[in-house]
Amino acid sequence: MRVLVLGGDGYLGWPTALHLSARGHRVAIVDNFARRSYDHELAAESLVPLAPLHRRLSTWGDISGIEIGAYRGDLTDADFVDATIAEFEPEAVVHFAEQRSAPYSMIDRKHAVYTQVNNVVGTLNLLYAMAAHVPDAHLVKLGTMGEYGTPNIDIEEGFIEITHRGRTDVLPYPMQPGSFYHLSKVHDSHNIRFACRVWGLRATDLHQGIVYGVDTDETTLHPDLATRFDYDAVFGTVLNRFIVEAVIGHPLTVYGSGGQTRGFLDIRDTLACVELAVLNPAEQGEYRVFNQFTESFSVRQLAETVAEVFPRKARIESIPDPRVEAQEHYYRAAHTKLLDLGLRPHLLSDTLIESLFNVVERHADRVDRNAILPTVDWRRQENPLASVEALTD
Amino acid sequence: MRVLVLGGDGYLGWPTALHLSARGHRVAIVDNFARRSYDHELAAESLVPLAPLHRRLSTWGDISGIEIGAYRGDLTDADFVDATIAEFEPEAVVHFAEQRSAPYSMIDRKHAVYTQVNNVVGTLNLLYAMAAHVPDAHLVKLGTMGEYGTPNIDIEEGFIEITHRGRTDVLPYPMQPGSFYHLSKVHDSHNIRFACRVWGLRATDLHQGIVYGVDTDETTLHPDLATRFDYDAVFGTVLNRFIVEAVIGHPLTVYGSGGQTRGFLDIRDTLACVELAVLNPAEQGEYRVFNQFTESFSVRQLAETVAEVFPRKARIESIPDPRVEAQEHYYRAAHTKLLDLGLRPHLLSDTLIESLFNVVERHADRVDRNAILPTVDWRRQENPLASVEALTD
Repeated sequence: MRVLVLGGDGYLGWPTALHLSARGHRVAIVDNFARRSYDHELAAESLVPLAPLHRRLSTWGDISGIEIGAYRGDLTDADFVDATIAEFEPEAVVHFAEQRSAPYSMIDRKHAVYTQVNNVVGTLNLLYAMAAHVPDAHLVKLGTMGEYGTPNIDIEEGFIEITHRGRTDVLPYPMQPGSFYHLSKVHDSHNIRFACRVWGLRATDLHQGIVYGVDTDETTLHPDLATRFDYDAVFGTVLNRFIVEAVIGHPLTVYGSGGQTRGFLDIRDTLACVELAVLNPAEQGEYRVFNQFTESFSVRQLAETVAEVFPRKARIESIPDPRVEAQEHYYRAAHTKLLDLGLRPHLLSDTLIESLFNVVERHADRVDRNAILPTVDWRRQENPLASVEALTD
Repeated sequence: MRVLVLGGDGYLGWPTALHLSARGHRVAIVDNFARRSYDHELAAESLVPLAPLHRRLSTWGDISGIEIGAYRGDLTDADFVDATIAEFEPEAVVHFAEQRSAPYSMIDRKHAVYTQVNNVVGTLNLLYAMAAHVPDAHLVKLGTMGEYGTPNIDIEEGFIEITHRGRTDVLPYPMQPGSFYHLSKVHDSHNIRFACRVWGLRATDLHQGIVYGVDTDETTLHPDLATRFDYDAVFGTVLNRFIVEAVIGHPLTVYGSGGQTRGFLDIRDTLACVELAVLNPAEQGEYRVFNQFTESFSVRQLAETVAEVFPRKARIESIPDPRVEAQEHYYRAAHTKLLDLGLRPHLLSDTLIESLFNVVERHADRVDRNAILPTVDWRRQENPLASVEALTD
């Protein structure tokens, strides 16, 4: 199938492009290198060194004999989006191309506005271009489990049957996103659902949990094919942070009580889920939601697991929660639709955690201890990051 | 009270500013004159001639002896918003300053993106400025009943108690907006609710129905104080269109079967509701929703009422519905919160309709027959309006 991977130079976009290419799909990447720019802005870096896209692509060509195409440009540039969709004529569009960090979106007004405009306008431009040039193509959009927040009832996959005053309807699941980033995904979900309804587009919104891991069948073939490993307080995710903290002898920093419970999945399952969605497209006019995660853990549980598996002593320390979120709450979310399509999950294992210790130990000299503690407080409207100040004023 | 009226030069913003000023509040207006620009872009005009803002203000000063201040600028200009809020230090901010036409937002990609960026970024800038300078002030935001769409269960005021698999929670009411404009209001609602939660702001989201009428106690004091009367297919609303059609001997154009049912209210009730919200602010940290309408009618009912009241013969004609919407559906929406605060509604009466016939007859020579039939089809991604093409390319 002809698959266009938007954000194909990013943490998940790149291994997804490789995976789909290895599985025989004709793949092209779209990227504006925003994710690499955030590194410069934040004076942060992937723990694993990254080859530039042109070297990634040429190494993949050398190893596999398969070409992955590349369109370099920005989704907020409508002419670029239009020309790209018209030229590549994708049968499926996998859309990772959004600013994806909650703390980044909460730095200050500029970053909040940037996040929402970048994500919402990019997706709007894409919807218009797909409707104009490839109305039968399938949009596979990366959303987030964070769109739901933490309601006191079970989370369903996108929609919920509500009986109210004697009548019943199936309605979009009520959303309670917890940052301007998560809000941007909710805005997207509403816009995409509408475009399916009025233009007959087909879309799958993957409400993804927190992804861990860095190695896939393809990224391990050559150092040039490696993907990002982020552990910093702005772009890093919680399991990565704990792994790095354990290795460098820093206490594992749990925000607040650590009762915050979320859905998680292995990076290899992300690739499998995206391909399952691509191979089983939504109907014409259908907007559907898959909850894309395999297990739920509380932050405290994750910290305890990492501390146990780590061969030396790892201490757990609670620090003030920089986010405004429930620290103890009910959490039970459906995630059967991808399993029904055939997903066979890689559950979190000691082996996986040990392999991450190895990754971090290999690059321990690249760890920046100053990048670990939170710098963005949800309660403040301005969070002065030294490097950010200089760049955004 | 010190009240800042954003969009205070518009259809409802202007009479609201006058009303609040007449009732003893200290009022200033913010406007970028976008609404007047749309007229030029669409080659359309208010049926009732409009004085420019400076003349409106000086005439009001002459008649009432009260000054209304004016800040001329754009909410998407963060520095302007910040400086305005810091200088005026409002106790309440009444926010009408958004692109408010569904058909306008559906003209093409540029108008969709403009509508969402203008509305969402303007509101984000406002939230940041309020949090920084007047964190105790009350935001009274104009939303729309169109955020709910037409679910097959009763519509509640912003939130709904859901019992699901044996557990219960009160959650945001699921939204099914029907245009990129209505979507922008849903995005706003989510953003505002979040700002109340993380920063402790207080906000009332007025989910307003379709407003009819043009005369208020203050606008009738002098022709310079008149507000807009829109009947064109892009900015006009349905009752206004029927009134104009009756007066000029055009069939009353019902979209589709006319079973589309919506909440409506008299312009004088808008002013009363806004003042009730201002006088009874939300709690610190509270985001609340009032459904602001007084009666529900189907489009067919409205057409029949107008045809009956009109002294000469008015014919009703069904034309293809340019929108993607249910033409026959369940509709029952709560609207008790404003009544509980003391609203005494002006229900739609033959007298009101007759007074609108008089308004139209007075300005019948200004009616543009070509502006009446719909030009924007929801199913198309590009709706070439002759005048729009020239301006937006």
